[in-house]
Amino acid sequence: MTSSARDTRFLLFDVFDFPGHYAQLDIVDPPGEPLISAILDEAQRFADNELAPINSIGDQQGCRLEDGKVTTPDGFKAAYKLFCANAWPSLTGDTRYGGQGLPDSMSLVLEQTLCTANLAWAMYPGLSRGVIEALESHGSDVDKQNFLPRLISGEWTGTMCLTEPHAGSDVGLAKTRARPNADGTYAISGTKIFISAGEHDLADNIVHLVLARFDDAPAGTRGISMFVVPKIDLDGRPNNVVCGSIEEKMGIHGNATCELLFDVARGYLIGEMNQGMRYMFTMMNAARVVVGFQAICLAQAAFDKAARYAVDRLQMRSLSGPKAPDQPADPILVHPDVRRMLLTQKAVIEGGRALVYFTGALIDKTERGRDETQRAEAGVLLDFLTPIVKGFLTEVGFDAINDAVQIFGGHGFIAETGVEQMVRDARITLLYEGTTQIQALDLLGRKVLMKQGAGLIAFGRLMEELAGECDGKLDDLAAGLRGLIKEWSDMTFALAAVVAQNPDELGAASVDYLFYSGYATLAYCWARMAVVAAADGEDPFMAGKLATARFYFKRVLPRAGAHKQALEAGADVLMDISDEALTNGASQTGH
Amino acid sequence: MTSSARDTRFLLFDVFDFPGHYAQLDIVDPPGEPLISAILDEAQRFADNELAPINSIGDQQGCRLEDGKVTTPDGFKAAYKLFCANAWPSLTGDTRYGGQGLPDSMSLVLEQTLCTANLAWAMYPGLSRGVIEALESHGSDVDKQNFLPRLISGEWTGTMCLTEPHAGSDVGLAKTRARPNADGTYAISGTKIFISAGEHDLADNIVHLVLARFDDAPAGTRGISMFVVPKIDLDGRPNNVVCGSIEEKMGIHGNATCELLFDVARGYLIGEMNQGMRYMFTMMNAARVVVGFQAICLAQAAFDKAARYAVDRLQMRSLSGPKAPDQPADPILVHPDVRRMLLTQKAVIEGGRALVYFTGALIDKTERGRDETQRAEAGVLLDFLTPIVKGFLTEVGFDAINDAVQIFGGHGFIAETGVEQMVRDARITLLYEGTTQIQALDLLGRKVLMKQGAGLIAFGRLMEELAGECDGKLDDLAAGLRGLIKEWSDMTFALAAVVAQNPDELGAASVDYLFYSGYATLAYCWARMAVVAAADGEDPFMAGKLATARFYFKRVLPRAGAHKQALEAGADVLMDISDEALTNGASQTGH
Repeated sequence: MTSSARDTRFLLFDVFDFPGHYAQLDIVDPPGEPLISAILDEAQRFADNELAPINSIGDQQGCRLEDGKVTTPDGFKAAYKLFCANAWPSLTGDTRYGGQGLPDSMSLVLEQTLCTANLAWAMYPGLSRGVIEALESHGSDVDKQNFLPRLISGEWTGTMCLTEPHAGSDVGLAKTRARPNADGTYAISGTKIFISAGEHDLADNIVHLVLARFDDAPAGTRGISMFVVPKIDLDGRPNNVVCGSIEEKMGIHGNATCELLFDVARGYLIGEMNQGMRYMFTMMNAARVVVGFQAICLAQAAFDKAARYAVDRLQMRSLSGPKAPDQPADPILVHPDVRRMLLTQKAVIEGGRALVYFTGALIDKTERGRDETQRAEAGVLLDFLTPIVKGFLTEVGFDAINDAVQIFGGHGFIAETGVEQMVRDARITLLYEGTTQIQALDLLGRKVLMKQGAGLIAFGRLMEELAGECDGKLDDLAAGLRGLIKEWSDMTFALAAVVAQNPDELGAASVDYLFYSGYATLAYCWARMAVVAAADGEDPFMAGKLATARFYFKRVLPRAGAHKQALEAGADVLMDISDEALTNGASQTGH
Repeated sequence: MTSSARDTRFLLFDVFDFPGHYAQLDIVDPPGEPLISAILDEAQRFADNELAPINSIGDQQGCRLEDGKVTTPDGFKAAYKLFCANAWPSLTGDTRYGGQGLPDSMSLVLEQTLCTANLAWAMYPGLSRGVIEALESHGSDVDKQNFLPRLISGEWTGTMCLTEPHAGSDVGLAKTRARPNADGTYAISGTKIFISAGEHDLADNIVHLVLARFDDAPAGTRGISMFVVPKIDLDGRPNNVVCGSIEEKMGIHGNATCELLFDVARGYLIGEMNQGMRYMFTMMNAARVVVGFQAICLAQAAFDKAARYAVDRLQMRSLSGPKAPDQPADPILVHPDVRRMLLTQKAVIEGGRALVYFTGALIDKTERGRDETQRAEAGVLLDFLTPIVKGFLTEVGFDAINDAVQIFGGHGFIAETGVEQMVRDARITLLYEGTTQIQALDLLGRKVLMKQGAGLIAFGRLMEELAGECDGKLDDLAAGLRGLIKEWSDMTFALAAVVAQNPDELGAASVDYLFYSGYATLAYCWARMAVVAAADGEDPFMAGKLATARFYFKRVLPRAGAHKQALEAGADVLMDISDEALTNGASQTGH
């Protein structure tokens, strides 16, 4: 069993009791432990056997564009064929359109195995799931019948087409146009960039979800509508969408990042006019949780390599005396700072994974809760946690991968070792689906201040309950949690007051607030795991969990305090400096 | 004038008064402001015109190995020829062997311009300077006559051959053998890896500085001797050293990282037997300062791009109301977090550059001080600061480059933008010439505790003096400095006590101690710059310096406290976890 599979079982069964959780949802036949285990094992086997071996091949070969067609790296197509033959694409799809109807959180189990083995490959089916969700939520019955069966079977894949050259974080600037055709379809024209999986040879057809604007639409995000634009139209004829170029980029070389040119392409309006941004957010929020998880999965892959290396590599003697006197030097695992780096990685990976599955259960409840109250309560927490999962886990996950490189020393810089690829692949997770900066504004602005702290208060209540569970058994963690609850709340109230006076204080505090919130959230996750582990502290795995929890509280969590101090310095220190001085004169000169 | 040239003038003339500093050294004709300015301007011109244009070409093409010969990327050879024709290699060389005899700190000015424009290229002449220094310090007159003139002219280049497959951080494990030949030379046999500039087509000959071991030498680092092994021997015949392979790596593709096979190659012993490590440290300490500077130079290059982009890129409106109402959106420079990232980069780059030039003046004093007292006092500070410059500046420099990528959003991940290359190029600086971990052990173990804190005490005295200069003008900075002096000293005394009880506490505290020391050292540099800037606060450049100093104290320096708290948690939290739990079972299984 791989280390992540063992840890995932701990989370799914011991910590969060997913079988019990599923039994409380509105599902006819909720999956129990045997089915969940089988899915985890089989997904892991598929990823280990089919995807891991082509991960570095994908990095080296990248994708090739010739005559508008993209060829994926060796082995990508065969693996995708097998993936479909094994029915993986249909795991959580609607049963009415050929799906297996499993709850959404089960797709996180699948995603975990795929992303750990090969992120570039995993993105092809990953994008499809986003399109499936958007159609299931907002498509008409006809749309669903037209597109869902073959997306759910994997015969077709999907994309999300938001970004344009001058519209990145600011989607409202998008210029792509939609004009009605006589037959009820729409003519879509414009250029989209950075379209992951935008063109490839894995599937027969690609279903593009495109944001576009009617001529008379309101300006900004309120004038954006959502369309489906298939590469091959429903009548079997090629549509007017072509891949103009693919990007040379830092990592995820195996995934084609395309510029797509829509030239009076035929599109199908999804839902109502001018509601595209709202629909897109349904889909993007789920995608953001997955992106946070991607960083954790890559960090896991890097950790596995670094831990192996720390055991095998002999360099220098332990400062407290030789530990392997029969060898020319001790394994570097004896050196305290190597242990510190491995523990930091474990704290981020295992704490992050716990946060993702906790969030996954909230997604299930939001979508399949038995009543409106359960769905609404879960929704409040989910809204609050989503930018933390995306914004915080990608940042600390990226750092964790760099720690893995550091354990390899100079060998970490060499392609053969494989960890440097993970740094390059992971770097995108801090950028796509909304940068860290966008997540931070979403958290502090929309999710906390605009909602009078509803999510924070609900989460604080969970922390308070958990502190109660820690009392008497894990008093140090209980005290830590209670300190955080108060500090986080006080800090938020103080921020609300300064933001009311000066809106720039929001942007000035947001990223430090995100980091603070991330560290506090992981503290909750570690304390939850510690409570379970403490009940069985003799078991080596559980003892390791307890030790890592203590490490987290003592040696990682202090960073939260630095972020608090930084944000309390306020906006003036950022805004007072002149643009000229800030940019070393760039603001004074033309490009 | 580029922004870094303006800032360098500020440091060389306003803050550190290099003309005055040179006048106090043992130099016949100390360079004054006109000469220093001319060197800065000409070096900048060369770097801008010849090196910057081939930086991304070097990254894309990399080096090619065919039949034992390495071809460097297009333009590298021509640029090197011009570099030699312009007499840059001889800048600081010994006048007796054709050098211009300028003080060592002037080579930092040159290094700055080269590394900012093209790190991979800059490493070729950079390695030569290390060999020149080693020969000047430890070579015999014959060695000097044989090798120095053509190294100083640039006709030949140099390398440092330390690392072997099983000897990285632990140089004492090196197995390369030396056996005496009848003619007084030595036969060198062994394999060296990760040899930067180990084989290339820029110069006629390459002079390898090789660490090797006599058959009867003591084990470990005390049995290592230093040899010069020329690629082409002094009689004009090829020596028995071949490049076996070049590494595929994350960055610095334009520099050939070679495996070198020495097979009974002819070598010349430098200095005395078994003194190789000591000699190598002379050279390595200078190299470590340069490596710290490399990270800052790349961060400067990335900042320049990011600042330009922040001015030009229009996305979203300022939260406090439109700032460019005639445009479709505001420049992203208006957003507080973009300013925070730019200010963080400035704080690290300009503070780091100040630290490097401050250290450069200490190198001058150590080598050319007028009397033993001046040399010794400078040596104490230099020893103390060197691991901080290398260990801390590479870490925060790398983070600063990632901030620059973040400002570009998704565009930062695209090769065309050029910033992702800087992330990849910079990653090596945290690894080579001793990892961050090695620097941290060097700082806390050898430089602080083994020397009873002599360097820290001397630096604390400078901080105390500076706090006095801040009194009445910059009271906030004065208070900040005094707080740091006391905290740093108290923390160090407490550490001395726990390390005496348990040597593992040294390794457990070292990296956090390095970071704390780095932040404290940059606080000193920023306060020094602020004192000068405060005298002329109406000038926009000086006002920018003051604003950045305040930003540093308020929003960056709090991180030091998190490192203090982390290290005070002690070693148990790292050592108590079982190896099995720490490595998720890797310690229980063979590879």
